[in-house]
Amino acid sequence: MAGRRPTQKLAPNPGEPSNGPLTAEELQLAVRNHSMPLEALRNDVTPPGLHYLLDHFDIPAVDGESWHLRLGGAVRQSLELNLRALRRAPSISVPVTLECAGNGRSLLKPRPLSQPWMLEAVGTAVWTGVPLAYLLARAGVDEDAVEVSFTGADAGIQGGVHQQYARSLPIDEALRPDVVLAYRMNGTELPLQHGYPLRLVVPGWYGMASVKWLSSIKVLTKPFHGFQQSVAYRYQQDADDAGTPVTWMKVRSLMVPPGIPDFFSRSRFLPAGPVMLTGRAWSGRGAVQRVEVGIDGKWVAAQLDHPAAPFAWSAWSMPWVADPGHHELSCRATDASGATQPLEPVWNYQGMGNNVVQRIKVTVEKAA
Amino acid sequence: MAGRRPTQKLAPNPGEPSNGPLTAEELQLAVRNHSMPLEALRNDVTPPGLHYLLDHFDIPAVDGESWHLRLGGAVRQSLELNLRALRRAPSISVPVTLECAGNGRSLLKPRPLSQPWMLEAVGTAVWTGVPLAYLLARAGVDEDAVEVSFTGADAGIQGGVHQQYARSLPIDEALRPDVVLAYRMNGTELPLQHGYPLRLVVPGWYGMASVKWLSSIKVLTKPFHGFQQSVAYRYQQDADDAGTPVTWMKVRSLMVPPGIPDFFSRSRFLPAGPVMLTGRAWSGRGAVQRVEVGIDGKWVAAQLDHPAAPFAWSAWSMPWVADPGHHELSCRATDASGATQPLEPVWNYQGMGNNVVQRIKVTVEKAA
Repeated sequence: MAGRRPTQKLAPNPGEPSNGPLTAEELQLAVRNHSMPLEALRNDVTPPGLHYLLDHFDIPAVDGESWHLRLGGAVRQSLELNLRALRRAPSISVPVTLECAGNGRSLLKPRPLSQPWMLEAVGTAVWTGVPLAYLLARAGVDEDAVEVSFTGADAGIQGGVHQQYARSLPIDEALRPDVVLAYRMNGTELPLQHGYPLRLVVPGWYGMASVKWLSSIKVLTKPFHGFQQSVAYRYQQDADDAGTPVTWMKVRSLMVPPGIPDFFSRSRFLPAGPVMLTGRAWSGRGAVQRVEVGIDGKWVAAQLDHPAAPFAWSAWSMPWVADPGHHELSCRATDASGATQPLEPVWNYQGMGNNVVQRIKVTVEKAA
Repeated sequence: MAGRRPTQKLAPNPGEPSNGPLTAEELQLAVRNHSMPLEALRNDVTPPGLHYLLDHFDIPAVDGESWHLRLGGAVRQSLELNLRALRRAPSISVPVTLECAGNGRSLLKPRPLSQPWMLEAVGTAVWTGVPLAYLLARAGVDEDAVEVSFTGADAGIQGGVHQQYARSLPIDEALRPDVVLAYRMNGTELPLQHGYPLRLVVPGWYGMASVKWLSSIKVLTKPFHGFQQSVAYRYQQDADDAGTPVTWMKVRSLMVPPGIPDFFSRSRFLPAGPVMLTGRAWSGRGAVQRVEVGIDGKWVAAQLDHPAAPFAWSAWSMPWVADPGHHELSCRATDASGATQPLEPVWNYQGMGNNVVQRIKVTVEKAA
């Protein structure tokens, strides 16, 4: 594993790495939030309930009837819009693959103490709503604007800081035509847990940018320094490292585990013979250009389909003739920037952006 | 904690209890499946994605167009129906609270190794479909029938046994008018992960009875001895105890944790002053008759609403004037059978039916 490791402390605080066993706090987060069972990679579009979900605080109870969005700050004309007004505005529908920035965290050693994701914190949905750029144009962004901040209705404490969840985007990102204020997911009303009545969706960025339960948007002439921007979601080597911000999703591929599982171990079993290995691949940094499948460490190029949209995942497939015995299957994607997935996790202090290749152990049984 | 404890073994097998830390296998199950975040107790009806979900094996890919249900065994006339035919048959809509039989398992010491639920493996949905009794009447059940078995399309290995998930019901239960073969959940098509295209829903029973992805139904003249009936889902004191079957849900209440959470610890913080404590209570054994709320161990009766249906949860509420300091809140329900929730977990070998009272630690802060 690459990256510098801190010396282990006796009583790790949240966010500090641990070599110890899973804690009750991590279990509590794991049962609250959920990832996408890997067999759901079969679906082009992930239904609510299978799409990954990470809610930092509680899901807020927002009354859609009385709710309204405020858009202000460095603009010519502040706006205040209710849900009806937003639904009347021009709309777009964008298929987007969203992945949690902490996906893969629990595979790191030492393990940052937070939501203990394995590899499945991902999903692809079609988000329908108003282009953010349209509302910003209506409000008239001042020339000296540098960022736009987004504040959700979800409140809590993190790192000792009372806060409503809030993040910002650089002004150029906020003005992209595909950044959407979504009130529908997969053609139906936005589910409570995905940000009802309105959420931001930023295609290509890790999920933390796509603020849920939006209550206000503010155009800023100075960079935003909220907790989720300046403290959380940074690539750091240790607690004192200012680090760099987490932004775009790194390239990743995942495979549908073939065969059938053992209930407890999730080990896989399949009969000898031909089997089609399938999965999905995505990147926030440019199109996926290549997916390779590893059979016992030998890499072979997979067939790669075109994605439904620039920031939706691509399906891939590769036929395999499984011979009896134990095998390790893996997959590895490369994107247009030339970036590829590492064979070993790259460690960082918060456990962000671990796009290590997936490995699946399978037992192939002689056909009866 | 009541109940006999087995001596600890060196290498616990799945299902065997452990005093050790959480295992990677339990984490894998915890990130795959999901419970209902407690703030979703606010909703009368739980949306997919918040409703608890336990899928033993993989979610099977069932083609609704070519799928059909076979009903046979000890009947005058076997039936074979496709989804279109089922949708044309008489239908009922039943609001049902479903809870996993293993809810509360991770609070037991030693801890049975399986899905490590805390307290939130529950949900209430409106299930729409064909009454099972209607189809059984159409087929004509033989006079010597004793049980009806249900087999799902989900396949895997558990306890070393290759199997499709299958369970049975006593014939009298199967003929209840409210047992439904559901093709809709909360008014929309049954989600993939909840059993598309058709599942059984048995009001009042723990969730394991409500077989998903139904492929066949068989009327039996002898008791069914499948793995999920004879080995799993039993109240046992040790591995050699034949035990008794898990059937009806025990009485339970849960509270919406008041205030706001700390992200990692989920500790709760709220300002001093009046706050309405709210929650839900249910039982498979008869109506909930009383809910008491404990404030620092002192029990006070809560206001209890009527449920939407005999086997749907009841809302309860109790106003509290929170004074500054640390407090422990809890809730306890009693049903028409006189059964009440225990203050300490009652241990059993598989970790079934742990309806221990919920305890929430809150910090009340002086209002600013």
